[in-house]
Amino acid sequence: MRTTGDAFHLAIPARDLDAAERFYVDGLGCKLARRYDDRITLDFFGDQVVCHLSEDYDHDPGLYPRHFGVTFRERDDWERLLALVRRRDLCVFAEPAVRFADDVERHSTFVLRDPSNNLLEFKHYDDPRMMY
Amino acid sequence: MRTTGDAFHLAIPARDLDAAERFYVDGLGCKLARRYDDRITLDFFGDQVVCHLSEDYDHDPGLYPRHFGVTFRERDDWERLLALVRRRDLCVFAEPAVRFADDVERHSTFVLRDPSNNLLEFKHYDDPRMMY
Amino acid sequence: MRTTGDAFHLAIPARDLDAAERFYVDGLGCKLARRYDDRITLDFFGDQVVCHLSEDYDHDPGLYPRHFGVTFRERDDWERLLALVRRRDLCVFAEPAVRFADDVERHSTFVLRDPSNNLLEFKHYDDPRMMY
Amino acid sequence: MRTTGDAFHLAIPARDLDAAERFYVDGLGCKLARRYDDRITLDFFGDQVVCHLSEDYDHDPGLYPRHFGVTFRERDDWERLLALVRRRDLCVFAEPAVRFADDVERHSTFVLRDPSNNLLEFKHYDDPRMMY
Amino acid sequence: MRTTGDAFHLAIPARDLDAAERFYVDGLGCKLARRYDDRITLDFFGDQVVCHLSEDYDHDPGLYPRHFGVTFRERDDWERLLALVRRRDLCVFAEPAVRFADDVERHSTFVLRDPSNNLLEFKHYDDPRMMY
Amino acid sequence: MRTTGDAFHLAIPARDLDAAERFYVDGLGCKLARRYDDRITLDFFGDQVVCHLSEDYDHDPGLYPRHFGVTFRERDDWERLLALVRRRDLCVFAEPAVRFADDVERHSTFVLRDPSNNLLEFKHYDDPRMMY
Amino acid sequence: MRTTGDAFHLAIPARDLDAAERFYVDGLGCKLARRYDDRITLDFFGDQVVCHLSEDYDHDPGLYPRHFGVTFRERDDWERLLALVRRRDLCVFAEPAVRFADDVERHSTFVLRDPSNNLLEFKHYDDPRMMY
Amino acid sequence: MRTTGDAFHLAIPARDLDAAERFYVDGLGCKLARRYDDRITLDFFGDQVVCHLSEDYDHDPGLYPRHFGVTFRERDDWERLLALVRRRDLCVFAEPAVRFADDVERHSTFVLRDPSNNLLEFKHYDDPRMMY
Repeated sequence: MRTTGDAFHLAIPARDLDAAERFYVDGLGCKLARRYDDRITLDFFGDQVVCHLSEDYDHDPGLYPRHFGVTFRERDDWERLLALVRRRDLCVFAEPAVRFADDVERHSTFVLRDPSNNLLEFKHYDDPRMMY
Repeated sequence: MRTTGDAFHLAIPARDLDAAERFYVDGLGCKLARRYDDRITLDFFGDQVVCHLSEDYDHDPGLYPRHFGVTFRERDDWERLLALVRRRDLCVFAEPAVRFADDVERHSTFVLRDPSNNLLEFKHYDDPRMMY
Repeated sequence: MRTTGDAFHLAIPARDLDAAERFYVDGLGCKLARRYDDRITLDFFGDQVVCHLSEDYDHDPGLYPRHFGVTFRERDDWERLLALVRRRDLCVFAEPAVRFADDVERHSTFVLRDPSNNLLEFKHYDDPRMMY
Repeated sequence: MRTTGDAFHLAIPARDLDAAERFYVDGLGCKLARRYDDRITLDFFGDQVVCHLSEDYDHDPGLYPRHFGVTFRERDDWERLLALVRRRDLCVFAEPAVRFADDVERHSTFVLRDPSNNLLEFKHYDDPRMMY
Repeated sequence: MRTTGDAFHLAIPARDLDAAERFYVDGLGCKLARRYDDRITLDFFGDQVVCHLSEDYDHDPGLYPRHFGVTFRERDDWERLLALVRRRDLCVFAEPAVRFADDVERHSTFVLRDPSNNLLEFKHYDDPRMMY
Repeated sequence: MRTTGDAFHLAIPARDLDAAERFYVDGLGCKLARRYDDRITLDFFGDQVVCHLSEDYDHDPGLYPRHFGVTFRERDDWERLLALVRRRDLCVFAEPAVRFADDVERHSTFVLRDPSNNLLEFKHYDDPRMMY
Repeated sequence: MRTTGDAFHLAIPARDLDAAERFYVDGLGCKLARRYDDRITLDFFGDQVVCHLSEDYDHDPGLYPRHFGVTFRERDDWERLLALVRRRDLCVFAEPAVRFADDVERHSTFVLRDPSNNLLEFKHYDDPRMMY
Repeated sequence: MRTTGDAFHLAIPARDLDAAERFYVDGLGCKLARRYDDRITLDFFGDQVVCHLSEDYDHDPGLYPRHFGVTFRERDDWERLLALVRRRDLCVFAEPAVRFADDVERHSTFVLRDPSNNLLEFKHYDDPRMMY
């Protein structure tokens, strides 16, 4: 469990702020909070993600060691996001799959790739106690 | 505001899992959830951070474009974390300072550096509506 | 008291969507959810406000009978919003004042005017039971 | 998400306060908070709606650009309200329908008309993230 | 602690429904939910009180064995209600006093009398664990 | 909705405190908070009920104008309480029935009688908005 | 953080159930839920403690390795319980003291002894993140 | 119901801290908070359990009079924990069973044994009001 009032925040590189906005706001359904010349700040599923204009982004992304995303407690939320991804044809980096299938930490996951090659993983654990 | 049941999750590189555990658990007071040969998973202020054993870490870290952390709604929480940092002599990358001092999005911030050069920023905004 | 999961929603006229976005997002600190050719949808203090492109807006606004806004339970929230209004020089239609000063429903209020002459009132009641 | 302690508030015109009270309290099941000679204040689904006695009401109402209402997170709440509307034979301005049917922001909606031609829209989104 | 979704409900006699409405709604600031010929139902501080038209009311009320009311967790809420009582000159049956002054269950209390001689006691305990 | 921290409180007559304790604690599953020579205080479904030793109790109880109880938001809670009543053979004054069957305020109800003839009604409304 | 709906439960020995009830209910202000011939069950600060009639209790109690109690997030709650302990002259095993005084996990604590020599420790941490 | 901010805490003996950590963290999925030479502290389902290195542990454990655990409000949580126990082959002291089968306080339960013979009982009551 976590608090409702605090927020996790993450800063990531964006090669182009308009492309970032199209992906996160128009695509993923996040909300735009503030725009500056060199960054945009987003309400990303209730936490803060800041896209900084930068050339220092991954040209050849791999899931490890860096990625981020949301783990949903409710299966419906994970399913609805996947439906949004299909409906809006967002860029899927890894198709939905089950990981740790024979373990208690078994979970469903899919991965998206944003326009600057940041990788976003969305998970749902069979057992919510395994979310950490 | 955000939900209590979901969790943000972030994967970051760690050159050495023992060093990561000392920093996050013994140092920062996070909780260890699971240990594998190639990663450790942490309850990081209510969200999930996973440290993946990797050589692909920053050798010359700079705050932009990548960092992560927590924005506290309550000033006391930010102050107590800073007190913990001093008491436990954690590695401070940027001393406490005020940013955007003349703007509504004015906030207090300090930055830590973990043993793999991941940078952690902890913020408190004068106006909580500016947390995004 | 009200639920956290539902949202009030309000549709108002906007003569120009860019001007509306500058006022609500850049000015008032609301979050942009979606953009269409004929409307923008906003997360307005946790509820939904939709600005519809329209010529049917008030050319000579008066506080009655139409206005909308937020009543804050906490005085600090009202004060911080007023500070934002001053800092960002938003258009004040009615300066902060106390109404019903000798009654239990005594409250503090100020009113803003958006670029399409919609009037926004922000209140704080001395006695929160009087918020309805 | 939104806070439980704050309230959205909306002021609308009413040509007749008794008619307004019959519609909102006896009809729609809202709660009457206060009565004055020139207005009534209501607990409207947890937010505040104030009906101001006024001749400045819409004689030929159209859904755009002005209307208001509630978006329910739970489908059951939307269904129960519709059942109340039928049972109490409230004035329906737009029959239940689905809008944006092929989009992620797909939602169910119906619209009522109050005695002063204010239009009230009640919505339920397939995907609650689209409520803004 | 108690749930937010359930409600305590209480049925009491009222010799006159208009007088009851004036006391509870105009006086005490409760909200009117429904009106029938033989009763009114009220949102009484978040619970339900129903006033039934009846001749079977107390002609010579005493605090024991029957009365009802609210115990506030927060001192401010008790103070604000007392201020409302003074401001609106409601009928006070017992002036504010402290009971069980030397015990852990020490609490502040005042009692009102409604137009049908129902007695309403409002309490605040020094130690909230003693609220039961 | 109501707060979690406050409590409704009700004082009722009891001809015999042991009988009252057997009914409310052993029978109804409420929790005993404090015992005095002349009263017992109970955590009654999260609110406070105080049974005062008194001869002034109803010898010929009728549902109107006085009774009290709980309205459950969740049907399951009402059903489980009814199961407890049957299992523990508590005194049923009115068998489960539906009232206002053709109205929006339709609800299920049953009534118990305590050893001092206080009547307890437990309700579940089809539409929770009708709980007041 | 923990859930509101679950409960920790603990079973401890009691040499005499009446003595246990006097200590926990009359003394400590817990609530009695159920009584059997061989045990009593209690609502102990929101969790369940069951006292089992048994000769297998500690005749020479020491704080380690067994004790239990509550850690309060709010200092006021710890202070009020200490005031109750003094007011009701409960058996204090260890006077209020500060432990780990120079560490982040610094906390205030006092210990009570129940009639069967079970030891109860009540804590308040300077930094709530150290509660685990 | 209980608060989210407080924590129950329990101190128990552990003959070996590594064995305790393997059981509670790797086995049961609890989270490690702090490690000392003589104890480990755990986030145990949201409460605090501290394992103290000690020779004073039970060599011949029986369920009475001492054990501890969690009562889950939701059946799913009890079921998922049982699945984890089976999947990770934890030491079961008492197989899943129903107790008080014909009573309102009927509940499902299973008991585990930790490496120091502390017994852990996990319960789910048919009627959540019986959790105390």
